[in-house]
Amino acid sequence: MACCSADSIERARKILDQIPGRATGAYSHSQGIKGLRDTIAAAIEARDGFPADPNDIFMTDGASPAVHMMMQLLIRSEKDGILCPIPQYPLYCASIALHGGTLVPYYLDEATGWGLEVSELKKQLQEAKSNGITVRALVVINPGNPTGQVLAEENQKAIVEFCKEEGLVLLADEVYQENVYVPEKKFHSFKKVARSMGYGEKDIHLVSFQSVSKGYYGECGKRGGYMEVTGFGADVREHIYKLASVNLCSNITGQILASPVMSPPKVGDKSYESYIAERDGILSSLARRAKTLEDAFNKLEGITCNKAEGAMYLFPRINLPKKAIKAAEEVKTAPDLFYCRRLLNETGIVFVPGSGFGQVPGTWHFRCTILPQEEKIPAIVTRLTDYHKRFMDEFRD
Amino acid sequence: MACCSADSIERARKILDQIPGRATGAYSHSQGIKGLRDTIAAAIEARDGFPADPNDIFMTDGASPAVHMMMQLLIRSEKDGILCPIPQYPLYCASIALHGGTLVPYYLDEATGWGLEVSELKKQLQEAKSNGITVRALVVINPGNPTGQVLAEENQKAIVEFCKEEGLVLLADEVYQENVYVPEKKFHSFKKVARSMGYGEKDIHLVSFQSVSKGYYGECGKRGGYMEVTGFGADVREHIYKLASVNLCSNITGQILASPVMSPPKVGDKSYESYIAERDGILSSLARRAKTLEDAFNKLEGITCNKAEGAMYLFPRINLPKKAIKAAEEVKTAPDLFYCRRLLNETGIVFVPGSGFGQVPGTWHFRCTILPQEEKIPAIVTRLTDYHKRFMDEFRD
Repeated sequence: MACCSADSIERARKILDQIPGRATGAYSHSQGIKGLRDTIAAAIEARDGFPADPNDIFMTDGASPAVHMMMQLLIRSEKDGILCPIPQYPLYCASIALHGGTLVPYYLDEATGWGLEVSELKKQLQEAKSNGITVRALVVINPGNPTGQVLAEENQKAIVEFCKEEGLVLLADEVYQENVYVPEKKFHSFKKVARSMGYGEKDIHLVSFQSVSKGYYGECGKRGGYMEVTGFGADVREHIYKLASVNLCSNITGQILASPVMSPPKVGDKSYESYIAERDGILSSLARRAKTLEDAFNKLEGITCNKAEGAMYLFPRINLPKKAIKAAEEVKTAPDLFYCRRLLNETGIVFVPGSGFGQVPGTWHFRCTILPQEEKIPAIVTRLTDYHKRFMDEFRD
Repeated sequence: MACCSADSIERARKILDQIPGRATGAYSHSQGIKGLRDTIAAAIEARDGFPADPNDIFMTDGASPAVHMMMQLLIRSEKDGILCPIPQYPLYCASIALHGGTLVPYYLDEATGWGLEVSELKKQLQEAKSNGITVRALVVINPGNPTGQVLAEENQKAIVEFCKEEGLVLLADEVYQENVYVPEKKFHSFKKVARSMGYGEKDIHLVSFQSVSKGYYGECGKRGGYMEVTGFGADVREHIYKLASVNLCSNITGQILASPVMSPPKVGDKSYESYIAERDGILSSLARRAKTLEDAFNKLEGITCNKAEGAMYLFPRINLPKKAIKAAEEVKTAPDLFYCRRLLNETGIVFVPGSGFGQVPGTWHFRCTILPQEEKIPAIVTRLTDYHKRFMDEFRD
């Protein structure tokens, strides 16, 4: 037992005691093991300073099935619309398409660091309405994927106000809540923001998605996650529970992991210091990687890159020469894909073309993660820089 | 290491080596880890005596998400129908409803031990067609849930022939493949049956669902499973892969478990004998429990129970007295639920009313699992018998 601190062993025992029969191989309650939901609700309370109810927690195999459940619930026909950011993590457009709804896009403003303007939300909502679409919900990804921005609290308040006024369900993708890299920004959950504005359970429909796949833990293969569903009546919750019960329960290993993710070692625990050292080590390294890559992109001809405030990505814009766009068209390939595929073939570096996430028509981007090991980043920057120079030399107008 | 045999440790190492980076916390290929799919495909080949392709395997969080994926793929509108057994495990009706399709019921014949008659399939198919429904697939659960029958090979051949003739996708729920309790019956996969009839990849569309939740392993909380998809072109498989990739991958712990479930210790392995002893101990105990409960039901006034040939359930029929039906109606409760709820309240025994699975109108049933510990079964039988007598004394016509 030398490998584990006394508090870790104690925590493992406590978790086992929370599982009926201490059996990790049995089905659980379809919302997830009650004791684990108690821990998570207490952790949300500690994070936000406002009450959280374990009965509002639905544990899921990662955040994706939770998003599907909400789309299933919200979308009745192609006349139902969901406001989604562009660019966006493509789970949302896929889930809306699978459930037969209509994606109502709103554009993040690249010029203001991928800002989310309420005027843009209003404009898109009006346009959707005039096309006969009933907009049911607003998806906000904060910190942003693929854009890496962290919303300011004032901005979040305006978004909450907008959802309340328009009667929209606010679907808050908060899976990157631990991934904030700049001192001037902090993560605030939308629930905390709404409650701090005085809006309670009856004032706003709010769903927050969380996952064990991100943060400093990154246990994505374990498929753990949950959603906290507030502001709905008992009848709606009954429907969500019914949906959850069709698949019996989420995997218990993933459920268990969500407990220390939300409730890590505390001051006074023997493992606290090593936990903090590891957590801060990972997060500060991610912050350095983000900065190094951001600076590298901004040095490249025709590329501009916003600050990576959070999440795990940069989404630089590339001003592709006309000659490159023509060459791409000749091989029937989107210009951003053309750039990324050549990069992959020549250097082994993988960027995801912006067309996979959506972008303002006529602009080109790509998503780059900040996840490669820190010591490999300088070599990646060199390979990328060399590639980009060759590319521009070949295609510069 | 005294607790594990050398071959178990070797197997664990081999599985770790099959996982890229030996990382159980990372996302995998969206179909599941290739090395594990190789093991599973080889095990299917060994089971059936016909080739299996690891690229046909899609690993999923239990069998349920695999069923949803196929329904998602098959159902375009409410004009698309899926032939489903009645009684049936309600995942199927739920999934068809969620995907907006039409359930086309076919009745299992209680008089012949829940037999699956092709004449009944043909009749229901014709009726659906005449109602403007395009029937796309046939669901067969073998061994049956909730009915516990095991199909005879000749019967399976007729079903394969029917699907081939009518161009239906055969969705074979084979999660109870290890759970066969009578010497006169054996499990045959539908793929083996189809291939033994000379039907190859191009002749029949066939999907087999498997899970780590059943058999003698029963690790249902781990949410492991897979489907083997054969007889579709590359274009359809591409769509299934796209669907799988929306949720990234199934949980790695569940994926790992599917490997020993399909490829347990072999003759010559040090753990072989203890494995066989444990497996046979569990399965023969389940067989004894099934027989004890079956006999007990058949002794009760007004109850008849078919043989539990396989799976984990009995589905006895109860001839409820008119007085009981009237009493149930007075409290606005289905008569089978009325019986089961009183049983629960008076004895703590849980039976699921037949109305949860479907039954011939005017007949009443309940599903009883054979899973309680063997030593508890006699006391359960006594409590049930006493309850049933009291119930009949109160309501006998």
